Amino acid sequence: MGDGSDDLMAATYCALCEHGYADLTMQRIADESSVSKSALHYHFDTKEDLLETFLDDLLETFEAELASEADDPRAQLDALLDSVFGPAQEENGDFPVALMELKAQAPYRDAYRERFAELDDRMREVVETAVRDGVESGHFESADPETVARFVVTAINGAHVREVALDESPGETATLVETYLDDQLGHAPEGVA
Amino acid sequence: MGDGSDDLMAATYCALCEHGYADLTMQRIADESSVSKSALHYHFDTKEDLLETFLDDLLETFEAELASEADDPRAQLDALLDSVFGPAQEENGDFPVALMELKAQAPYRDAYRERFAELDDRMREVVETAVRDGVESGHFESADPETVARFVVTAINGAHVREVALDESPGETATLVETYLDDQLGHAPEGVA
Repeated sequence: MGDGSDDLMAATYCALCEHGYADLTMQRIADESSVSKSALHYHFDTKEDLLETFLDDLLETFEAELASEADDPRAQLDALLDSVFGPAQEENGDFPVALMELKAQAPYRDAYRERFAELDDRMREVVETAVRDGVESGHFESADPETVARFVVTAINGAHVREVALDESPGETATLVETYLDDQLGHAPEGVA
Repeated sequence: MGDGSDDLMAATYCALCEHGYADLTMQRIADESSVSKSALHYHFDTKEDLLETFLDDLLETFEAELASEADDPRAQLDALLDSVFGPAQEENGDFPVALMELKAQAPYRDAYRERFAELDDRMREVVETAVRDGVESGHFESADPETVARFVVTAINGAHVREVALDESPGETATLVETYLDDQLGHAPEGVA
């Protein structure tokens, strides 16, 4: 895609927020970007193809956010929680709604499902590694890394449904996660909720 | 709706499983039922109106399932978990996918959101009451009823996304909930996972 890729991903994000997944069209994505609809079609046959690349981009952004952190297990855990529950999420507008629509499409589109699975694996891996390292280094109390990781990803998924279906702030779930981690690890992430 | 109501709700359920929400039409619901499309329209202007009644019916069924249980707080908690994670859920086919699509519509339809909020309130109430009663009667260890209830409903929402987006069995979340409740209350629900 060359240099236009960032622009196109931002345009897809905006078009998703504005129109949702069902009403998303290549024309509407082009309208948000600096390229024409025909230029879009040069790279992607359908909006579904474009959204696969968009989900790849989302995953890359997420990885980059986490990679910039120090190697202290507490900082790693806090960075993950901040990236999913932090203040930046409050400004996401209707993006969580569009993302929920995409998740509801996963049973019909293997390519979407694979990307959601990859994102989930990555989040679990971050939590498991941080818990394992933190227990080893004495920063955390003894805990089962897999159980803690499963709790965190399930809570993240739960917060997403609750935000979309019930209009509940993700901060409610963040508080639950803080209480849980404090209980399990003796470490309450700072400033998440 | 009189006596045809059960038939119609079953027909809506089947049509949702088969076609999903986006492709659901009054004709497709009529096709699954013993009534004609025009008879359907006598009672409901649109599929959205019909789905409001369908969600009411879902809530009633859920309440009836829980009401039949004894007043032992352990049995009440187990009944809730069994109704959301139990073996009956394994035979639900594509219904979780359709329900996720409905949840993604909640931001655009207050009537759906109200019903999901009511279902959520009811689940939290069941858990809170059971935990409070169980702690009082000495069946459970001391625990904060609101925190436990929030954990359970968030896990239920999380399991729903994970089933739809990742094709993960709800049994995985059920195991997490069992571990949590055993830890918090000293009570592991039987035979849920």
